Amino acid sequence: MTEWGAQARPVEVPDPEPGPGEVLVKVAGCGLCRSDLTMRHIPREAGEALGWRMPFTLGHETAGWIADTGEPVALVSPTSCGTCRLCVRGQDSGCPRGLAGRGYGRDGGLAPYVVVSDRRALLPLGDLDPRTAGPLTDAGATAYHAVRRALPRITAGNTAVVVGAGGLGAFAVQFLRVLTAAHVIAVDPLPARRSYAVSVGAQSSADTPDGIRADVVLDFVGTDETIAAGIAAVGTGGAYGLIGSSGGKLRGPWFSTLPRDGEVFTFQGSSIADAQDVIALARAGLIRNQVEEFTFGEIDQAYAKLAAGSLTGRAVVVL
Amino acid sequence: MTEWGAQARPVEVPDPEPGPGEVLVKVAGCGLCRSDLTMRHIPREAGEALGWRMPFTLGHETAGWIADTGEPVALVSPTSCGTCRLCVRGQDSGCPRGLAGRGYGRDGGLAPYVVVSDRRALLPLGDLDPRTAGPLTDAGATAYHAVRRALPRITAGNTAVVVGAGGLGAFAVQFLRVLTAAHVIAVDPLPARRSYAVSVGAQSSADTPDGIRADVVLDFVGTDETIAAGIAAVGTGGAYGLIGSSGGKLRGPWFSTLPRDGEVFTFQGSSIADAQDVIALARAGLIRNQVEEFTFGEIDQAYAKLAAGSLTGRAVVVL
Amino acid sequence: MTEWGAQARPVEVPDPEPGPGEVLVKVAGCGLCRSDLTMRHIPREAGEALGWRMPFTLGHETAGWIADTGEPVALVSPTSCGTCRLCVRGQDSGCPRGLAGRGYGRDGGLAPYVVVSDRRALLPLGDLDPRTAGPLTDAGATAYHAVRRALPRITAGNTAVVVGAGGLGAFAVQFLRVLTAAHVIAVDPLPARRSYAVSVGAQSSADTPDGIRADVVLDFVGTDETIAAGIAAVGTGGAYGLIGSSGGKLRGPWFSTLPRDGEVFTFQGSSIADAQDVIALARAGLIRNQVEEFTFGEIDQAYAKLAAGSLTGRAVVVL
Amino acid sequence: MTEWGAQARPVEVPDPEPGPGEVLVKVAGCGLCRSDLTMRHIPREAGEALGWRMPFTLGHETAGWIADTGEPVALVSPTSCGTCRLCVRGQDSGCPRGLAGRGYGRDGGLAPYVVVSDRRALLPLGDLDPRTAGPLTDAGATAYHAVRRALPRITAGNTAVVVGAGGLGAFAVQFLRVLTAAHVIAVDPLPARRSYAVSVGAQSSADTPDGIRADVVLDFVGTDETIAAGIAAVGTGGAYGLIGSSGGKLRGPWFSTLPRDGEVFTFQGSSIADAQDVIALARAGLIRNQVEEFTFGEIDQAYAKLAAGSLTGRAVVVL
Repeated sequence: MTEWGAQARPVEVPDPEPGPGEVLVKVAGCGLCRSDLTMRHIPREAGEALGWRMPFTLGHETAGWIADTGEPVALVSPTSCGTCRLCVRGQDSGCPRGLAGRGYGRDGGLAPYVVVSDRRALLPLGDLDPRTAGPLTDAGATAYHAVRRALPRITAGNTAVVVGAGGLGAFAVQFLRVLTAAHVIAVDPLPARRSYAVSVGAQSSADTPDGIRADVVLDFVGTDETIAAGIAAVGTGGAYGLIGSSGGKLRGPWFSTLPRDGEVFTFQGSSIADAQDVIALARAGLIRNQVEEFTFGEIDQAYAKLAAGSLTGRAVVVL
Repeated sequence: MTEWGAQARPVEVPDPEPGPGEVLVKVAGCGLCRSDLTMRHIPREAGEALGWRMPFTLGHETAGWIADTGEPVALVSPTSCGTCRLCVRGQDSGCPRGLAGRGYGRDGGLAPYVVVSDRRALLPLGDLDPRTAGPLTDAGATAYHAVRRALPRITAGNTAVVVGAGGLGAFAVQFLRVLTAAHVIAVDPLPARRSYAVSVGAQSSADTPDGIRADVVLDFVGTDETIAAGIAAVGTGGAYGLIGSSGGKLRGPWFSTLPRDGEVFTFQGSSIADAQDVIALARAGLIRNQVEEFTFGEIDQAYAKLAAGSLTGRAVVVL
Repeated sequence: MTEWGAQARPVEVPDPEPGPGEVLVKVAGCGLCRSDLTMRHIPREAGEALGWRMPFTLGHETAGWIADTGEPVALVSPTSCGTCRLCVRGQDSGCPRGLAGRGYGRDGGLAPYVVVSDRRALLPLGDLDPRTAGPLTDAGATAYHAVRRALPRITAGNTAVVVGAGGLGAFAVQFLRVLTAAHVIAVDPLPARRSYAVSVGAQSSADTPDGIRADVVLDFVGTDETIAAGIAAVGTGGAYGLIGSSGGKLRGPWFSTLPRDGEVFTFQGSSIADAQDVIALARAGLIRNQVEEFTFGEIDQAYAKLAAGSLTGRAVVVL
Repeated sequence: MTEWGAQARPVEVPDPEPGPGEVLVKVAGCGLCRSDLTMRHIPREAGEALGWRMPFTLGHETAGWIADTGEPVALVSPTSCGTCRLCVRGQDSGCPRGLAGRGYGRDGGLAPYVVVSDRRALLPLGDLDPRTAGPLTDAGATAYHAVRRALPRITAGNTAVVVGAGGLGAFAVQFLRVLTAAHVIAVDPLPARRSYAVSVGAQSSADTPDGIRADVVLDFVGTDETIAAGIAAVGTGGAYGLIGSSGGKLRGPWFSTLPRDGEVFTFQGSSIADAQDVIALARAGLIRNQVEEFTFGEIDQAYAKLAAGSLTGRAVVVL
């Protein structure tokens, strides 16, 4: 990103120099995210209000090797101060300093090297392949954050609904399968996504089933329609979690509509603990990370497929 | 209540006869509630869908003495089955059988005697006066249910906002003062209510303060305006609880508006455990129960003051 | 059981008559439990102090059919009042009225019929076979109670240790596998038990591995040795749960020995919610219930195998 | 501390020089702790195993002013890495790097200046006096850690017992009073301590009352006697927390002795979040911090009173 409101474009950047206490990481691969596309439209005023610096390199799903030691690591992208009331309680995804991060307002992973200034951002990968591990830290961790939040409301044998079985939703299905005894229903209009969701343990449906009383609905879409259907599908004491940023609203009155004795939550991002847990699950072989690999030269094609919704799995640029 | 959609009126009823396992309670006093007024307008279809039986005696804030023993007790009004998934987990306020209860669809406490068929409904009062204890079980327990729900989100020295400092809100202020180290702000346009809230430990304000970042906002009003202001007043990780039934909605999109990493909850009613706790707090002298006493002959006047919002404290009819 | 301190023996009993509100259940099968054997030695004073009535029929793992309707049900055996502070919070396993129950001080399931006086005790079985479902309500629910307690302390990819892989332990392994992403190690000296534990998803070991730092150790044995080894195997923030009643103690000082920032818990029994959940898991096909079937005529042989530790699976008497 | 196993003695030390990213703090006052006395006896092998460096300056209850800005701050003394699984979850008191800290193995606050290398250790004091605020970070935060742990087990109107009403216990009484509706009983043989406990809201007793069934017992003594009495005083579902390091053990078998469905926990230290909360409570005027002030020249006298148990309040050396 070289200008506010302009297209991103490939440019030569000098390799960064780590300062004292900083760590240089050679990038192996970096996932692409739908938010990379929306960043292209952010106005200067909005970007500066978030504390973003221009230019910056895109890419917030980065993994590679510590340059000095060769150790494979994935990187936490969100910034957090580590010292505030929220950070010292493990709620760093709410840190007020988290509005800019690696790949959004600061240099990200679509480059040969990145510098890590906070050791909390280093996630050892063990045997995992750093070329494709990046999406675990964002698509994976964001979905995990939502699932973790909903866990106490899920009782044995009841139902959890995942609306939108794309990159994040497919992770959510897997976390629900691994961490609960819920019956998981993945709702998506696209047959390919439904198939993949089924292959990782969900039942699937083109629409949120009528009359269902789920313990939890996680909505990775977030239109007026999915919000209305999702809220209606939550049983007493259940949760509706909104992760999808489509900007929907609920038209009806809240009092008689929201889940009785339940909860509604929204958020974005994930904490460092979430990312650690997702890496741990992947290292233990308990989750799959479906990716489609591209070279750096194919990056425009990758973004085009992402924009068109025709990817099967998360797009990863291998560097 | 003798007819669907009609005014309630005083009638002679025979004293009820307790069946096997049932307990006869001589009523000492019964609180009046705004919902008594709205019941007068409920259509037959809606009432029957809830399983209500007509006629029934109003009054769901009842206390008195067990007829056999003279022991003073307050009564839980909501019905619950005691056996379902929710009941056996202490979440009986969500029981599907809870749509009718003592004073709404079943005979309530504005009569010389009531019959209690479930011993879970008996709350020993000890030294508390049964003539005025009734509101603890409804206005008190409903407010307590909301506060208990919000407790884990309240950190030392932070702020809790109570919107609407009437009967329920004034209880909520007290529970927050007793159970947390939060700074409590009571928001109400009426100076008399603000004064009472201040007397039980809140700061007060005519409006939700701008720019505040509260750990929790409990909204006992629930209009479009209080919902918008309340949601805006919640900080990261905080909670907005809607108890007021004014039928408001949120106009904006949810994704960027709802509290980040926080929660929204709504409900009505309270569990048996809530009522037990409120009685325990009152018996320990930790909360005040502000009531205005009326005789049965003054009941129309009491409802008129309730409708006009000119009561100071909860109206109680002493029998 | 016909006399205090004597052997149990088969006698003819009249079929029980259900009173008002009670339910008659035709027994299909009843599991045998090691505690049946120890009951034979309980002194009269101890039994009467618990409120036990003599004679009574043994058997606290009962399932059958509701006599009126033929509906298959398993039965909760522990008694609880349903009204006390603990019961209305879902903690009925701690109810002060729980010292006597179906099969211990009251008539249990080793008879053609039992009477159920509290509808909370009826657990619908759906497609599960009532002849063998009884152990789910006791061996299963007790193990589940311990696992449920430990769940919040188990993080992704970490280790849980189950000491003693007999009836309860084999259930615990399965619950941990279904409800967490923990690596489960089953510790038992008996190869047959280790094999079964492996078949339901554990690693196995003859002894608690040295130097391990588990998130949770559940000890279904409870000797001095297993307590010492179990406590030593818990990492910072972890839990040690003692379910085994072998009477062991910890010899060392507590301050430097107990798990740092962790917890130790012991208990016996299970709540109704636990039993509901276990039935739900079994109905969903998520857990196996390994039983060895006997006729009523083979009951002495079944108890003998139980005493000798030579059963493979829980002994069930099919009636 | 200039030698292993020797008495501490006043020596001249050069003012420390902060490195890059470090903060120099001018000390205003530093609390004395009983553990300062036991450190004098630690063998070299044990100290080195903990990673302690000799010589070091004692004092782990430090407050002062940031040298550059004059801002008053108290200091977190325990070290933690900030990056491990526990630290990023807010459980930094369990960090494996926490075995050495400011005043134990590293230079502490009984000197004109200290260097802070981790900004998480800086706790802004606002209007609190830095000369006497130090004990909030250790005596206060350690007691708070125990109380916070026990909060979910305390129900309205029930009892909490604090055994040992010295520095930590007196804080615990106050936290229980501010954060719960429990009836608090402070147990201490010393009348002066009982009086102070009463002045901050406890009932007091020379011994743990017989037959009590408390929701929580916090034992700041930890002998065989207090452990036995404390465990016996916990009701079903309650907690016994051992904070006192007297090295006691429980003689009896665990199975029938430990609190039924309850928990036992031990720990030492406190997290950064605990210290933040305690400072917040003190800044809000909700807790008192009873100290006895000494000059640096009176330090031997202060330690002598500490050793003799004749202090009224925490000893603070004002620098």
